[in-house]
Amino acid sequence: MNPALIASNGLAAIREHHPMVHHITNSVVMNFTANVTLCMGAAPVMAPCIDESPEMVQFAGALLLNIGTLNHTLIDSMIAAGKRANELGIPIVLDPVGVGATNLRTNSANRIISELKISIVRGNAGEILSLAGKHGKVRGVDSMDTIDNRIETISSLALETGWVIAVTGSTDIVTDGTRTVGINNGHPIMGRVTGTGCAATTAAACYAAVVEDCFEAAAGALISFGIAGECAAERCKGPGTFVPQLLDSLADLDEEIISRRARAEVLL
Amino acid sequence: MNPALIASNGLAAIREHHPMVHHITNSVVMNFTANVTLCMGAAPVMAPCIDESPEMVQFAGALLLNIGTLNHTLIDSMIAAGKRANELGIPIVLDPVGVGATNLRTNSANRIISELKISIVRGNAGEILSLAGKHGKVRGVDSMDTIDNRIETISSLALETGWVIAVTGSTDIVTDGTRTVGINNGHPIMGRVTGTGCAATTAAACYAAVVEDCFEAAAGALISFGIAGECAAERCKGPGTFVPQLLDSLADLDEEIISRRARAEVLL
Amino acid sequence: MNPALIASNGLAAIREHHPMVHHITNSVVMNFTANVTLCMGAAPVMAPCIDESPEMVQFAGALLLNIGTLNHTLIDSMIAAGKRANELGIPIVLDPVGVGATNLRTNSANRIISELKISIVRGNAGEILSLAGKHGKVRGVDSMDTIDNRIETISSLALETGWVIAVTGSTDIVTDGTRTVGINNGHPIMGRVTGTGCAATTAAACYAAVVEDCFEAAAGALISFGIAGECAAERCKGPGTFVPQLLDSLADLDEEIISRRARAEVLL
Repeated sequence: MNPALIASNGLAAIREHHPMVHHITNSVVMNFTANVTLCMGAAPVMAPCIDESPEMVQFAGALLLNIGTLNHTLIDSMIAAGKRANELGIPIVLDPVGVGATNLRTNSANRIISELKISIVRGNAGEILSLAGKHGKVRGVDSMDTIDNRIETISSLALETGWVIAVTGSTDIVTDGTRTVGINNGHPIMGRVTGTGCAATTAAACYAAVVEDCFEAAAGALISFGIAGECAAERCKGPGTFVPQLLDSLADLDEEIISRRARAEVLL
Repeated sequence: MNPALIASNGLAAIREHHPMVHHITNSVVMNFTANVTLCMGAAPVMAPCIDESPEMVQFAGALLLNIGTLNHTLIDSMIAAGKRANELGIPIVLDPVGVGATNLRTNSANRIISELKISIVRGNAGEILSLAGKHGKVRGVDSMDTIDNRIETISSLALETGWVIAVTGSTDIVTDGTRTVGINNGHPIMGRVTGTGCAATTAAACYAAVVEDCFEAAAGALISFGIAGECAAERCKGPGTFVPQLLDSLADLDEEIISRRARAEVLL
Repeated sequence: MNPALIASNGLAAIREHHPMVHHITNSVVMNFTANVTLCMGAAPVMAPCIDESPEMVQFAGALLLNIGTLNHTLIDSMIAAGKRANELGIPIVLDPVGVGATNLRTNSANRIISELKISIVRGNAGEILSLAGKHGKVRGVDSMDTIDNRIETISSLALETGWVIAVTGSTDIVTDGTRTVGINNGHPIMGRVTGTGCAATTAAACYAAVVEDCFEAAAGALISFGIAGECAAERCKGPGTFVPQLLDSLADLDEEIISRRARAEVLL
C-alpha cells in the first residue's frame, strides 16, 4: 500500500468522473461542505426532504449522512435515502456529530447504523467510541478522548461492523480491521474553524463515490484533506482567512503536492 | 436599448432606494445571498415561516423564491407570501433549483407557477426547459443542457407565460419574448462555487425591486453580476478566495466599471 | 469601572475556560457565528431540536436565543432549553431579530421574555424599543430608530426587567439600569455584512459564560467585538474580505490591542 498514490489516484478519479455527492447534513456547514465538494472536483446536492431524498440519491456516487443539527424528520429522510442507496450499491458515509452528548444523537446514530449498511464512519475519538458503546467522552460536539492506545478497540470495531472507520485528531487513524493507516497531515488551526471535521467527511464521500475500496477512499481523502489544510495554514493569517485558503488549496491539489507532502504510515 | 446603461441605472436606483428583498430560499446559500443583497445596496430579509412570510413581504420591493432545499411547509409559505406579493404588485423572482430532477421539485415548481404571477425566472438551461415541460436534462441541481439553438424555445415560453426568462450559462440569455439579449460577462470560476446561480437570482430580485421593466431588471442584474464575477476572478487565486472578492466587487461596481466591461448584445 | 480592563479580563477568562455556548439561532448566520464563537476562544454547539436542546444546554456556559428565522417549533425548543438553563443558573442571551416587524416575531419575543429569565438582550434601537412596547420602528430586520435621547428609556427598561440591555448602533449603549456605558468602537462597514449584529450577541454570550456580572460581560463583549471590527476594516477592501478578517481579528485580540483601542465612557 502506497498511501500517497492512493490519495492522488482517488483525486484524479474524482476530477475525471465529477461524481455527485448527496449530503443530508447539518445547517451549520452546508455552504462550506458544498464548496469543499466542488473544490474536490465533485458535485454537491443537498436534498433534505424525505419526499425527494430517496429519488435524488439515485444520481449520486455517494450519500453523506451528518447528524450535526438533527431532528426526527431529518433522520427519517436519512433512513429513506440510505435504504435506497443500499439497494443501489451507493456507499454511505456517516458523520455521527456529537453522538454520546444527548440521547437523541445516540438513539438516532444507533438507528442509522442498525437500519443501514454504512461504508465509512468519520468522527473524532469520542464520537467513534460512543458509537461503539465504549463510553467515549463527548462534551457537546467536542471529543474529550484521544485515540492513543485505542487503535485496537477501533480496529476490532471495524472488523465487527464491516465499516471503514476514520478517526480524526492530531493523528488520523483509518482502519477496516485488517489494514490500518496513521496519517500525520493536517494542521492545528483546523480545530479552530467550524465544520472542518464535517468537511473531512465530505472529502471521504467524494473519494468513496469513485474508489471502490472504502479503506483506500477514506485514507486517500484524509491525506488529501490534511495536506490542503497544511497548505492553507501556510497561506493564511488566522482561522478566518484559513477558510477561503483551504478551498483554494483543495482546488489546487495535485499529484506532485500530494506525493511531496503525504505523511502516512501503515500501522497494522 | 443600451444594456450597459440599463445595468448602471438600475444599480444606482438600488443604492438610492435601498429596497428590502424578501428571500424564501435554500439553507445552503442563505448567508451568501444575504451578503450579495447587501453588497448590491439592498437589504435582505429571510422569513421562511408561513406565519409571518406574507406579513413580512409587504415591506419588500421584491420577493425571491428559491426551491433549492424545499419541503411542503416551505412551499406553502412561498405560496402564501407570493399571493400577498401579487396583491400588492410586488414582483416575484423564481429560482427553480433542480426542477426536473425529482417529482417534488417539478410538482412544487409547477404549483408555484400555476398559483402565482411570476415576474422573472432565473435558471440554467436544463431547469428552464424542464419548467417549460420541454424535458430539460437535469442531474441533481446541474444542467446537462446548453442553450444553443434553444433561444426560440425560451422566447416563445416567455411570450406564452408572461415571464421574463433569464437563462445563465457561458452566455446568459434574457428574454421577455419580444426583446432578447445575450450577455457574455461572467467567468468560468463561478461554476466552481456553490450558490452563484442563486446569487444571480438575488441580483435580479434587487434590480426588480426598483426597476419597473422586469426585462431591464433581469438583463441589468446579470450584466452587473457577471462583471463583478470577472473582477473577482482577476483578484482571486481559486474558488475559495473568489467568494469574498465577488462580494467586494459587487460593492465596488459603478457606472464606469459597468460601461467599460459590459458585453451584451441585442439578439432579437 | 475600567471598560478596557473588563473587556480584556473577560476575553482572558474565555480563553482559559473554553466554555461551550449553546446557540438556538437563525439559519442565515449559523456558520458565521459558530466561527465567531471559536475565534473568541469558546466552543459553539447548535442543537435546535427540542428533543435534545434542554439536554445539550447543561454542558453550556451560556445559552443564546436568536429569533432571526423563527417558527413555532424552534420557539418551543428555545423555551424548553431556556427553562433548563434557568434551573441550572446558566445565563440566557437574547437577540430579538426583527421584533416589531411581524406579529410572529413580536409574540414569540414576548413569550420568551415572559416565560424565561433573560440575562442580556442585544438588539438595535428599534428592536429594543419594540421589545419594550415603545413602538420602535422596524422595517424587516433593520432599525429605523436611533438611540439618541433614548438612553433613559432603555435604562428604565433595564431596571424594570432585570435585563442587561445592549443596544448596538454607531454608539453602542450597555446598561443594567444603574450602570450605563457608551462604546464608540466598531466601524460602519459592519452594517454592510449580514449577521454582524447576531455575531455581537454571540460575543456577549461567550463573555456571559465566564463573567458573572452580566453588565460587565455585555460591555466587555461589545468593546472587544467592536475593536475586532475596526482592525478588520483596516485590513479589508470591502464587505466580502471583511468577514475573514473579522474572524482573524477576533482570534488575534489581546490585552494590548484592547487597552490601546477601547473607546468606552461611563454615561451614568
